[in-house]
Amino acid sequence: MKVLFIGDIVGSIGRDAVEQYLPRLKKKYNLDVVIANGENAAAGRGITRAIYNDLLQMGVDVITMGNHTWDNKDIFDFIDDADYLVRPANFSKDAPGRGMTQVSKNGVTISVINLHGRVFLPPHEDPFAMAVEMVEEAKKTSPIVFVDFHAEATSEKIALSWHLDGKASVVVGTHTHVQTADNRIYPGGTAYITDVGMTGPYDEVLGMGKDNVIYKFLTNMPARYEVPKKGRAVLSAFFVEIDDKTGKAIRQERVLINEDNPFQV
Amino acid sequence: MKVLFIGDIVGSIGRDAVEQYLPRLKKKYNLDVVIANGENAAAGRGITRAIYNDLLQMGVDVITMGNHTWDNKDIFDFIDDADYLVRPANFSKDAPGRGMTQVSKNGVTISVINLHGRVFLPPHEDPFAMAVEMVEEAKKTSPIVFVDFHAEATSEKIALSWHLDGKASVVVGTHTHVQTADNRIYPGGTAYITDVGMTGPYDEVLGMGKDNVIYKFLTNMPARYEVPKKGRAVLSAFFVEIDDKTGKAIRQERVLINEDNPFQV
Repeated sequence: MKVLFIGDIVGSIGRDAVEQYLPRLKKKYNLDVVIANGENAAAGRGITRAIYNDLLQMGVDVITMGNHTWDNKDIFDFIDDADYLVRPANFSKDAPGRGMTQVSKNGVTISVINLHGRVFLPPHEDPFAMAVEMVEEAKKTSPIVFVDFHAEATSEKIALSWHLDGKASVVVGTHTHVQTADNRIYPGGTAYITDVGMTGPYDEVLGMGKDNVIYKFLTNMPARYEVPKKGRAVLSAFFVEIDDKTGKAIRQERVLINEDNPFQV
Repeated sequence: MKVLFIGDIVGSIGRDAVEQYLPRLKKKYNLDVVIANGENAAAGRGITRAIYNDLLQMGVDVITMGNHTWDNKDIFDFIDDADYLVRPANFSKDAPGRGMTQVSKNGVTISVINLHGRVFLPPHEDPFAMAVEMVEEAKKTSPIVFVDFHAEATSEKIALSWHLDGKASVVVGTHTHVQTADNRIYPGGTAYITDVGMTGPYDEVLGMGKDNVIYKFLTNMPARYEVPKKGRAVLSAFFVEIDDKTGKAIRQERVLINEDNPFQV
């Protein structure tokens, strides 16, 4: 199975970049399944039903979330019916939505699990215990298991990825919005990258207009963070080919598209 | 001027990697100046006089530090005499050592400034104000100014780098130990990368033995973090060529050497 994961889609510039490049990426990599993090898709804060539907229409099969899951109140109206939206599995057991979903393509099933880090972030339930539990549950159906660990600290992400080596097919990190260059396949067959990076404005600070972010750092005064609607885009993604029988990763590649790194066939 | 910055050197595996590859890197890039972050050089915690001298002997011209500056008590005995060791400039004005140094090679002078982030880290003095002040001071001597911003959050690093665009020649991030793939030259001529990545053990968690780190995440029980003395190495660095007259970056390249990405001439 050939899978592409698109990193944190930020605002309309990010959504437009997906629309522009996903057809070409599907062709280039002969993709079976596309997963994307959509927790910043609605102007940087959460997701709406309309954006969820738009992304599925563009060819995204599963959308993962993170710390901004509840930022757009619209989500409470559709999350329980959204079969292809997963929020972190280690949120409270009383939270709406689901932490795992499965999708089948060309006779092969992939499970997609979302988890939330706890270092420098709110104290959700233990992502390490939850990861092992969910992966075991997923493997009852299919050996192909994809984990999006939405977390800040490199230590927590790398520790979880080693802990899942040989258990999950792929572990990707999201949240820091900057693609890392440490993509690799571990000895046990798990493909890993500490952060896939974001898909959104290229010349700002994590997708937020940089002038206000700099003003905030300079003064500690209140400043409104807004996602610009105009400007250059970056698309960050991670491609992995997985052996259908064993669930092990056999090929991986970073995808980074912007004006300094144009799309290549 | 051609400059190479080597990311956080961790323990003996990291120092050995510098010894092994620096001569080849000097030849490949025809380097004038080599800068390295050495705050983890002594078994992951601080630096000693012997290691400082060893690194200079290997061909490193300037060593920068970070949050582990004071972890090895040896530093208090030599920091005030160490002309080529810089600790964060935004430490207390009463702290020993210096926040900037200058080195001249082939008739050209480069200033090296070290700064410390405050997001998810101890509350040192304002790195944004200090950065501008130090860069202005440096430019009285030479237009070539190199900044190592030792910080955790991508937002703080990117905001500072945009703030210094056109003022500093190079801004590199250190501390997270994972190389990022966002290396570029900004419109104002400042070369930037969010994190250069580390130089040390390749198969662990930020250079620390992974079993104990995972045990700590799993149990919240006390666990001793130690840097292994055996194993595969990674060397992470950032090469920049700077125009001697204008101080603007004109070429940049990520350097990542490990068994998955072998050294290439």
